[in-house]
Amino acid sequence: MLRYKVTIAYDGTQFAGFQLQVKQRTVQGVMEKAVRTIAKSPTRIVVNGSGRTDAGVHALGQVVHFDFPFALPAAAMLKALNSLLPLDVVVKDCQVADSGFHARYDTTGKRYVYRVSRGYYTDPFRRFYTGHWKYALDVDKIELALNDFIGTHDFSSFAASGGSIKNKVRTIFAATVTEDPASDELIFEFYGNGFLYNMVRIMVGVALEIGNGRRPVHDILRLYEVKDRTQARYTAPASGLYLKKVYYGDGPADKGDLVTL
Amino acid sequence: MLRYKVTIAYDGTQFAGFQLQVKQRTVQGVMEKAVRTIAKSPTRIVVNGSGRTDAGVHALGQVVHFDFPFALPAAAMLKALNSLLPLDVVVKDCQVADSGFHARYDTTGKRYVYRVSRGYYTDPFRRFYTGHWKYALDVDKIELALNDFIGTHDFSSFAASGGSIKNKVRTIFAATVTEDPASDELIFEFYGNGFLYNMVRIMVGVALEIGNGRRPVHDILRLYEVKDRTQARYTAPASGLYLKKVYYGDGPADKGDLVTL
Repeated sequence: MLRYKVTIAYDGTQFAGFQLQVKQRTVQGVMEKAVRTIAKSPTRIVVNGSGRTDAGVHALGQVVHFDFPFALPAAAMLKALNSLLPLDVVVKDCQVADSGFHARYDTTGKRYVYRVSRGYYTDPFRRFYTGHWKYALDVDKIELALNDFIGTHDFSSFAASGGSIKNKVRTIFAATVTEDPASDELIFEFYGNGFLYNMVRIMVGVALEIGNGRRPVHDILRLYEVKDRTQARYTAPASGLYLKKVYYGDGPADKGDLVTL
Repeated sequence: MLRYKVTIAYDGTQFAGFQLQVKQRTVQGVMEKAVRTIAKSPTRIVVNGSGRTDAGVHALGQVVHFDFPFALPAAAMLKALNSLLPLDVVVKDCQVADSGFHARYDTTGKRYVYRVSRGYYTDPFRRFYTGHWKYALDVDKIELALNDFIGTHDFSSFAASGGSIKNKVRTIFAATVTEDPASDELIFEFYGNGFLYNMVRIMVGVALEIGNGRRPVHDILRLYEVKDRTQARYTAPASGLYLKKVYYGDGPADKGDLVTL
């Protein structure tokens, strides 16, 4: 029995999210099918992800682990998986991991990207790959506001209601926005020790409203205080969100640095 | 009755091509539906395209015309169409045209783009928007070969068999290839006075085989001679093809220049 740590990218458009669901096409589902085919296993082989992603959310570097019944060189496993997986999932890296490694429990940080298309109309070619904001945006104001995300805060106002997680305190190490000259899209990047359900999409929604002048620049500080999700209002759509990287003690998170990478 | 000339862009992925078909989702179909809704017309209003595009083929600048029962300012027509069209079609320009203007019969040239993704595996995010070639490519060789397309030639070897068009002679004004540093994709561009069915996709297929050394650099000259479509073999997939611009006496085509724009 050998444990593999596998980094995958996927286009989330045609998936009902990461997590296995009956009669739905999910990333976990297609991964488990491929692994089981390679193993010729009569029973399910569980593929554990670093966390779930919602329907329509993409990944550039999601990490999963699974236990495989026999030893296959990592390069052979990578090749076998890519030959079996559908075209919207690709294995980017494959390593044999320590038997104690766990893709979810061992994470020390995650990095998300959120892309926003700014044209008056949604670009037909980007509708599944960006959020869309057609109103005026002051990017300097957004940059200023994003600084308020950095540090350790109670993100209760930035988490979808419901859910079993009681502790809503998270640490954000970096929060940036850049303009992609090629596409004229805004690219948000958030790096933190963990993210609550819908948290990045709500953070982006608030940042866009600040950029449009609908909220004061430092409204984020007020939202920490009120601990009221309804006051954050707008959740940016799933289509713009990408899980970029999962950290396992290999990022500056572990040194406690609050740096922009 | 007023004739409108409308420039549209569309993501061809979810269309069964441009041309109206029973029980199929087509670009012409969604355009006609939108126009008819604005006109509140009890009968069909025909939307004529500059030409068909196949299922999966995209457009950055397809041109259509239609006759509308009452006078609407062009800006209002543009806005009304965009508010009614699905997200995979967008109107980029709208003008009131001369009553004699015809989107198909008046074309003097067309420009196509073909994008090729070069990674070993298909990029999940680009699978509907590029062709894919994982073998080695000598771009200098391709550039050399593309020069053989320029000029007036019999393109019988480069046209899908069947079809009613007897005259297979066309003039190519420009044929270029560039490398997109952002995406690492190859971008072919072809500008000519007209293109036969599947012609660009077959031209790209031959160019890629030359770039990989499967054909001699000047094999295109031989293909003109043999007039045999089977010898051109590979047709590059629809997903990489974009109709970029349609010319109506407004391009260098009319001056007979053989220039790269």
